[in-house]
Amino acid sequence: MTDYRFLRACRREPVDVTPVWIMRQAGRYLPEYQKIRGKNSFLTMCKRPELAAEVTIQPIERLGVDAAILFSDILIPVEAMGVPLEFHEGKGPILGKEIRGQADVDALAVPDPADKVPFVMEAIRILRKAFEGKVPLIGFSGLPFTLASYIVEGGTSRNFIKLKTLMYQAPDVFRALMGKIAKTVVAYLNAQIEAGAQAIQVFDTWAGILTPRDYETYALPYTREVVGSLRRDGVPVIHYANDCAMLLPAIRTLPVDVIAVDWRIPLDRAAAEVGQNVALQGNMDPTMLFLPPGQIEECVRDVLRRGQSAASHIFNLGHGILPPTNPEHAVAMVEAVHRLGRKG
Amino acid sequence: MTDYRFLRACRREPVDVTPVWIMRQAGRYLPEYQKIRGKNSFLTMCKRPELAAEVTIQPIERLGVDAAILFSDILIPVEAMGVPLEFHEGKGPILGKEIRGQADVDALAVPDPADKVPFVMEAIRILRKAFEGKVPLIGFSGLPFTLASYIVEGGTSRNFIKLKTLMYQAPDVFRALMGKIAKTVVAYLNAQIEAGAQAIQVFDTWAGILTPRDYETYALPYTREVVGSLRRDGVPVIHYANDCAMLLPAIRTLPVDVIAVDWRIPLDRAAAEVGQNVALQGNMDPTMLFLPPGQIEECVRDVLRRGQSAASHIFNLGHGILPPTNPEHAVAMVEAVHRLGRKG
Repeated sequence: MTDYRFLRACRREPVDVTPVWIMRQAGRYLPEYQKIRGKNSFLTMCKRPELAAEVTIQPIERLGVDAAILFSDILIPVEAMGVPLEFHEGKGPILGKEIRGQADVDALAVPDPADKVPFVMEAIRILRKAFEGKVPLIGFSGLPFTLASYIVEGGTSRNFIKLKTLMYQAPDVFRALMGKIAKTVVAYLNAQIEAGAQAIQVFDTWAGILTPRDYETYALPYTREVVGSLRRDGVPVIHYANDCAMLLPAIRTLPVDVIAVDWRIPLDRAAAEVGQNVALQGNMDPTMLFLPPGQIEECVRDVLRRGQSAASHIFNLGHGILPPTNPEHAVAMVEAVHRLGRKG
Repeated sequence: MTDYRFLRACRREPVDVTPVWIMRQAGRYLPEYQKIRGKNSFLTMCKRPELAAEVTIQPIERLGVDAAILFSDILIPVEAMGVPLEFHEGKGPILGKEIRGQADVDALAVPDPADKVPFVMEAIRILRKAFEGKVPLIGFSGLPFTLASYIVEGGTSRNFIKLKTLMYQAPDVFRALMGKIAKTVVAYLNAQIEAGAQAIQVFDTWAGILTPRDYETYALPYTREVVGSLRRDGVPVIHYANDCAMLLPAIRTLPVDVIAVDWRIPLDRAAAEVGQNVALQGNMDPTMLFLPPGQIEECVRDVLRRGQSAASHIFNLGHGILPPTNPEHAVAMVEAVHRLGRKG
């Protein structure tokens, strides 16, 4: 197996150049993606392996990134649990299952990935063949807290009142839900690894809405269960949480290889929080891609400089690339990372 | 003048009991507020001094809080600058002025408060009479960065793409806009102090979307200009920013009396960041008011315990009280603060 720069950095081994990839690099900002999206619904693209593979491949050559991430959505396993899922243009996901009590949790399944979401593993197998010797492939899943928040809120939310009300007023129901999601995520990620995913990123997009104390009570144990139950076999695990600065003392106790952080915390401060036994990924503010390319280079330089405090650094944005981004600006960022991130 | 517990805590003087008030305590969660709101638009309530005064008074006895805050909206001075403003139920504010270039900034006014928003000062005068000897009155304003974000985005936003695009691609226009807002805010707050406001809280609700570096470049200088230009005459200034953990090293350089923080950073960590020359305000998660009252007490205890690390502590929520909150739970919180926050 080729000794990819990205995988070496995940393992904190020396690299020639800082590796870089972009969260949501297969996405709406690319005209070539829009062309396929124009003919297919978002969910169809997730569920047809040849389409998912095609848009996964699109950004690799165009951007020159060091890793590919499977095109999919964190809610795919949630739908497989029996939660009706729709995407409406501009409104985000709509989930159609209220969780009012234990009976609602009991009604959810822990799906067998081979049976319910075989298209994900099929896309991974197609991509491994296509990428052989070129770039490694990252699989992913949402973590239980974030998936529970989508289920309980019925979509995205501003204040997460339904979720926190359930969490506080019916902790047993909340825990049963989290346990069931954790089992689902473990089976889902192990199936991805078995199909060929060479790294796994787990996403806790909404963890940052919790106090550190609530995070440790209500979210962290289920993340620990997921991460601890993966049949890794050398596959590195990357943990991403948005707005995570205050959660790093808890996150660093997880047995993960890489901690990915949002743009609010400078990487040198993050390195001081997490120590030298884990790599860092991140964390340019996605809106900085609206700068002129010359100034993007200056931002890249700042992130790289701070990243030198980490045991190892994988360059990325601090959150997903935004749909109105000019693809040429993303190219300029990747090019600047490779030019300025050369070692020795 | 009565030596109010709240003002003593702002000045870091000894108090008998930790003082407490609630952000948005005059608001939608109160049935008595809804009754008045049912007959008047939100903006009418802001602009008719007797209505603004009435809803400001409502929560004081019911909750037993140690300070009152004027009922108003941070966008009132923005409308006075010449930006059309509407509030639509459930959608938040809609602002009707695009900022594309210098000409759009030039077209904005720096309004004379006595001429354009006299109702604010009239409400303050009514309230000072009503509260004499009972509770002190807090005046407030949004800070330039947050007000600019509302103007440029035309309302609330998720990713602040318009704002950051202007900031990055047309920094001169952005700076001209910020300078004009800063002048407006200074005149507005000085008029409030002159009318009788006994403390001032400045709000930078959206500062937390910036990297610490961008905060120092694009927001902090204008906050410093505002805070430095107030004719305080003993009136304490409270600085609030949401999602501010990583901004505290910058915020602590401001000449303010109190730093108010959101719930994401434990108060003992915040105290370690800001030092002993400033008081702290906060920071219970507003969603914790959905807990049963017995568990609210446990949350209050945790916040009070961490608050002991600060030079002085004013209890509050970490953000505004949420509309679906049961008022009896807010009463339980205030009661618990007064019972558990008794000194020595």
